[in-house]
Amino acid sequence: MTTVADILNFVETLAPRQMKMDWDNVGLLCGSKAAPVSKILVALDPFEHVCQEAADWGAELIVTHHPLIFQAMKSITDETSIGRSIMRLCASGINAINAHTNLDQAPGGVNDVLARTLGLSNIQIISPVGANEEGLPYGLLRYGEVNEQDLAAFLGHVKTVLGCEGLRYIDGGKAVRKVAVGGGSCAGAMLEALDAGCDTFVTADVKYNQFWDAKELGLNLIDAGHFQTENPVVAVLAEKIAARFPEVEVRISKAHNDCMRFF
Amino acid sequence: MTTVADILNFVETLAPRQMKMDWDNVGLLCGSKAAPVSKILVALDPFEHVCQEAADWGAELIVTHHPLIFQAMKSITDETSIGRSIMRLCASGINAINAHTNLDQAPGGVNDVLARTLGLSNIQIISPVGANEEGLPYGLLRYGEVNEQDLAAFLGHVKTVLGCEGLRYIDGGKAVRKVAVGGGSCAGAMLEALDAGCDTFVTADVKYNQFWDAKELGLNLIDAGHFQTENPVVAVLAEKIAARFPEVEVRISKAHNDCMRFF
Amino acid sequence: MTTVADILNFVETLAPRQMKMDWDNVGLLCGSKAAPVSKILVALDPFEHVCQEAADWGAELIVTHHPLIFQAMKSITDETSIGRSIMRLCASGINAINAHTNLDQAPGGVNDVLARTLGLSNIQIISPVGANEEGLPYGLLRYGEVNEQDLAAFLGHVKTVLGCEGLRYIDGGKAVRKVAVGGGSCAGAMLEALDAGCDTFVTADVKYNQFWDAKELGLNLIDAGHFQTENPVVAVLAEKIAARFPEVEVRISKAHNDCMRFF
Amino acid sequence: MTTVADILNFVETLAPRQMKMDWDNVGLLCGSKAAPVSKILVALDPFEHVCQEAADWGAELIVTHHPLIFQAMKSITDETSIGRSIMRLCASGINAINAHTNLDQAPGGVNDVLARTLGLSNIQIISPVGANEEGLPYGLLRYGEVNEQDLAAFLGHVKTVLGCEGLRYIDGGKAVRKVAVGGGSCAGAMLEALDAGCDTFVTADVKYNQFWDAKELGLNLIDAGHFQTENPVVAVLAEKIAARFPEVEVRISKAHNDCMRFF
Amino acid sequence: MTTVADILNFVETLAPRQMKMDWDNVGLLCGSKAAPVSKILVALDPFEHVCQEAADWGAELIVTHHPLIFQAMKSITDETSIGRSIMRLCASGINAINAHTNLDQAPGGVNDVLARTLGLSNIQIISPVGANEEGLPYGLLRYGEVNEQDLAAFLGHVKTVLGCEGLRYIDGGKAVRKVAVGGGSCAGAMLEALDAGCDTFVTADVKYNQFWDAKELGLNLIDAGHFQTENPVVAVLAEKIAARFPEVEVRISKAHNDCMRFF
Amino acid sequence: MTTVADILNFVETLAPRQMKMDWDNVGLLCGSKAAPVSKILVALDPFEHVCQEAADWGAELIVTHHPLIFQAMKSITDETSIGRSIMRLCASGINAINAHTNLDQAPGGVNDVLARTLGLSNIQIISPVGANEEGLPYGLLRYGEVNEQDLAAFLGHVKTVLGCEGLRYIDGGKAVRKVAVGGGSCAGAMLEALDAGCDTFVTADVKYNQFWDAKELGLNLIDAGHFQTENPVVAVLAEKIAARFPEVEVRISKAHNDCMRFF
Repeated sequence: MTTVADILNFVETLAPRQMKMDWDNVGLLCGSKAAPVSKILVALDPFEHVCQEAADWGAELIVTHHPLIFQAMKSITDETSIGRSIMRLCASGINAINAHTNLDQAPGGVNDVLARTLGLSNIQIISPVGANEEGLPYGLLRYGEVNEQDLAAFLGHVKTVLGCEGLRYIDGGKAVRKVAVGGGSCAGAMLEALDAGCDTFVTADVKYNQFWDAKELGLNLIDAGHFQTENPVVAVLAEKIAARFPEVEVRISKAHNDCMRFF
Repeated sequence: MTTVADILNFVETLAPRQMKMDWDNVGLLCGSKAAPVSKILVALDPFEHVCQEAADWGAELIVTHHPLIFQAMKSITDETSIGRSIMRLCASGINAINAHTNLDQAPGGVNDVLARTLGLSNIQIISPVGANEEGLPYGLLRYGEVNEQDLAAFLGHVKTVLGCEGLRYIDGGKAVRKVAVGGGSCAGAMLEALDAGCDTFVTADVKYNQFWDAKELGLNLIDAGHFQTENPVVAVLAEKIAARFPEVEVRISKAHNDCMRFF
Repeated sequence: MTTVADILNFVETLAPRQMKMDWDNVGLLCGSKAAPVSKILVALDPFEHVCQEAADWGAELIVTHHPLIFQAMKSITDETSIGRSIMRLCASGINAINAHTNLDQAPGGVNDVLARTLGLSNIQIISPVGANEEGLPYGLLRYGEVNEQDLAAFLGHVKTVLGCEGLRYIDGGKAVRKVAVGGGSCAGAMLEALDAGCDTFVTADVKYNQFWDAKELGLNLIDAGHFQTENPVVAVLAEKIAARFPEVEVRISKAHNDCMRFF
Repeated sequence: MTTVADILNFVETLAPRQMKMDWDNVGLLCGSKAAPVSKILVALDPFEHVCQEAADWGAELIVTHHPLIFQAMKSITDETSIGRSIMRLCASGINAINAHTNLDQAPGGVNDVLARTLGLSNIQIISPVGANEEGLPYGLLRYGEVNEQDLAAFLGHVKTVLGCEGLRYIDGGKAVRKVAVGGGSCAGAMLEALDAGCDTFVTADVKYNQFWDAKELGLNLIDAGHFQTENPVVAVLAEKIAARFPEVEVRISKAHNDCMRFF
Repeated sequence: MTTVADILNFVETLAPRQMKMDWDNVGLLCGSKAAPVSKILVALDPFEHVCQEAADWGAELIVTHHPLIFQAMKSITDETSIGRSIMRLCASGINAINAHTNLDQAPGGVNDVLARTLGLSNIQIISPVGANEEGLPYGLLRYGEVNEQDLAAFLGHVKTVLGCEGLRYIDGGKAVRKVAVGGGSCAGAMLEALDAGCDTFVTADVKYNQFWDAKELGLNLIDAGHFQTENPVVAVLAEKIAARFPEVEVRISKAHNDCMRFF
Repeated sequence: MTTVADILNFVETLAPRQMKMDWDNVGLLCGSKAAPVSKILVALDPFEHVCQEAADWGAELIVTHHPLIFQAMKSITDETSIGRSIMRLCASGINAINAHTNLDQAPGGVNDVLARTLGLSNIQIISPVGANEEGLPYGLLRYGEVNEQDLAAFLGHVKTVLGCEGLRYIDGGKAVRKVAVGGGSCAGAMLEALDAGCDTFVTADVKYNQFWDAKELGLNLIDAGHFQTENPVVAVLAEKIAARFPEVEVRISKAHNDCMRFF
């Protein structure tokens, strides 16, 4: 019988726990390692509607990228969204595991999938912070090359392949050849992208000052959306789990999609 | 229909939230204020066997003195006793409220009940820290008088009325006339008891150094057990809730008792 | 002869220093209060191109909303944008003053101007934190009313009157009647907007989690751009200074505009 | 002529200073290393009556386990017990040295003596934290084996060999075979005892929550008294000093005994 | 019989405890309030040779300005000067009290005595921080007036009346008319002296940067020695104690004088 | 064309950046590494009059020991001396570099020059903290030998060779043979000097307590002035820069001298 522990161990083979940032919260955040698993729902976030979807379907496990709990909790009540998610999970006997910054940094994780989705070639890690057991380096950002093109062409490409409704960006005044990527809120690392020789950086949640910083550094900075830059890993993760555990039904959340719209 | 909010509001009339210590965690710690309530289990602690007893009986609410969560939690799993309690509560749709240091300090709370159980007369608050809306002072410790007796006689009395299997104490060399009480771990406040003119102090969880400190201060110090000094309030609280909400069934936990034994 | 001190005193009549947040840095951040002033450049930010514009025009003073220095500096070099701005200002004898959170909070400041620009009626302060000498309350957010309309209509209105190239938003499922505004990064205060009975909140720099929080709270949340929500105050400020100091030439920066684009 | 330094050096051969916890205070805490020594009083604690006993006997040195000073002092007055001890020592020219957590952790120290006193066989260190110069490991807790017996039998044995007036304990539901020991307040380390495969843990100063923790972990937890679990080392230490310094008179305190009683 | 408590209470009438700085350590720092007193030695510092002088003379009390203990102590040994002082005091049954920043700030204390010794007229407090029970303000620095003179003349005067072997100073370029004084290390307060309209500041322990700061501020800054600027209060204090307690012999230390020399 | 970077690189060959204390601020503190340099002013401090001298002479660079900025700055205004220095430098296009504790610690730096100026023989480093690339140790203090002489003779020698107007000192009661030196405020390290076997320590900015500490330790302690003990390195540094960059004019500040006088 497959258990939560089996799935967690496998996920942490892909995204080893020691690759996480110090401040992060990953692994089994709700439930029991010993619980048997026959249905798994995979999603970017463990939000209420995802927990409800898992309950409606009869899943015993949700696997997400973002953690169910981030700020430590002193009560579990229906007054907060996280409280409602936990109450829903416990009431339905659903367990919750996640791989967050360990999946961001792992070879084959969030940022490798993002780089591949964007069609970059010669993908490499910017500022590796360590190496896994097989000697493969890991780290947060990736970069790779594209055929030289003007920014407008690359923006169209990004929008299409990530399925973005819109993009926000600044034009750093350079043609696009070497592209850094960091799914989610990685704009704070733009100097590393620049130091690696990149002309363009695709990330999300970019703030006013950061757009100006990029402008002054001459870096094309593209905010392609937190959801759109990280969600591609979900399908890859679901597929890998399904392949490894053929006896378990694995499904990608249908209820979860970006809530933010452009006008 | 009676709700968790109704019960919580009533409990916090008895033990107002503003009477709690800064570091404490009280009120609704699990569940929903809007949940309907027909059966309430009252106990000193929200331990697993108490949660199970509530589930077996079909209660929708447990009311305890000690908080379900004290250290903020970053996961809710079966690897810890608190995690198991929360999972059990959520799985059975049981809500949990508590009144801790607010009940210790409130007029008519833990320490007034303890003082009355010990038969003290002229019960007063040591070092009041504030007053409630009606102008009644509140604070942690109480003291009162007994007919002058030697320590051995008083020890026998304490053991009997609190139902202690044993007592630990030091003899401060004084007859017993004026007795301070502090349910649970209050030995750190022994100087306040002394300053109030007490010759004897009944509390619990006394440590080696504290016994010696009392010896040197000439204070009879009696460790009557954490459970035995605080549990008397449970029956009082259950009775008050039952009287106020006659439509609700209120029961004192049968499963919960002190686990510590003397030899 | 008009001096920097005269202008600063006047600006701090409009936006008194005691209205600033504790962590903020406002007032004279570069130069000398005694310096004479004949030309003033007003802009949202003291960026390099603004400093250059001031130098090219021969201004002796720039008045901005954002502070020239925020993180305290241990060197003034051309390796940072702020260092280059300071070097440019000192080399050209240009002084720099600013009013930041004091102008956000002041009656008639950033957020009142934003509310008026959006055409809100019955404009009031959400959660006032104090009152000025005349008894007028001040605080960060404002709210006001619009004729009831669906969100799409209001989005179109916002885009037009603020001159936004695009908007990002979530639909909280409510018609628009009562609108909160907070120029710049104010999404962290969305609960205050909700508590004030607002259905809609216009602010900027909204992050992924914040869009989801608003979704769950049922609040229409609109990111209209940091520049677009704060820049309206610049013209108002320039006009007031010009009216008070007719002997001084006051100009709004032509070089400074939002660098961020939509695709 | 034997000096304080000679005795201290010898004691710190038995309990090397580097074996102490970071927060501890050990060594010469009062007096002069150069002082000559002809009479030594050895005791668990440097309390006032011990200092007085040393003065009455004419000792120049007290050797204790607990430190004379723990919280750093800003005055030496007769308003505190520690102040009175120091004043007594200085007035009588008595020096004071101690070995605290270094003696707890050292091979042959507090916990080895406790384990031997309890008659454990195959005594080993739980979680060694280092090794001494000869390669012998050191660490806080010890464990060893006893002939399998029920808890009641073992409780009787403990009470007898340690000379306890009473014991407090919880029954973890297991027969006694493998026993961990930690003199003084070591209940916080019960998980280490459990991880080492122990069924029973003898320590002191156990608090309410800790008894419950042990109950839930299924560990027999016995509070045999701070004094009773640590005092056995005193005789061993006195004997070793006397053997090494035959020219010095070494005496164990007669005045010092546990002040805590059972009822 | 006069006791230490009597003397301490009198000293703290002159220099009330609530006038001390938060970080300071004053009052009874060694011994017993109940001890009888027939001989008192008064000195600026409680150094070893002062303690020895008190012992040789048979004093039961030393009264000093500087505290016996400043950094809290974890041992009392002959390895430090303070340890030796305490051992000497305790061995000879000498008690030690002090009034430090409370005496600096008190009306009639260190700085009033210094100002009077320098012959200043119209002596006032710079930046009073409170008032005593009689409504008299207190604070650290004093200032007063002298007949206008050049700096050289004033330097000669200071050297003479304070009995300094030498002075260190900078010439701020002003004639001397209004002089601030702060015994001991008060140069950090030079801006307050300047704000009070002073042209000259007499203090001690002045550092390189502080001399330069004064130079740039145009303030004559004179380092007249820590001992020389504070010691005048010793005679005044001794006299007041002697007048109030005629039954007690009061003596000023003969052994203590400045150790620092000029070349 | 010689640039600021060229000079900085050379200076940091003499005083490598990794030799600085953690808290220090060294290197390029104002201006641009790319700026061309034809005239360099070298001085101990970057005070206003030094900046003015550089401007008057037409220098593009000042090289100092003390840093231009130490406390991080939140404004650059004429209200502070440092603000005025920075404004002056930027207005005149002058760059500023410094080597502070790296020059104190470097072989051949401040303290080696001081030791050589005093004519010490067998100069060595006290408590080396590391070694440079060539294996030469570095550290703060130096010591060396002189022909045995009484303190008065040595004081006269120090006064002459350092050009001091006066000295402050205490007589530790020893003849002078082994002398420790630490330019600037190094008295806090007197125990290291003593441990190295020195009888005499030459440093500056000595405080009251430190003189007494030295007295009790039996160490001759000489305060020879901050300026006088550090300034000798200026000429050596200027000479080395001039020798390495013959195309650049290097000048030692004429305007800068000690402002402190003796009376």
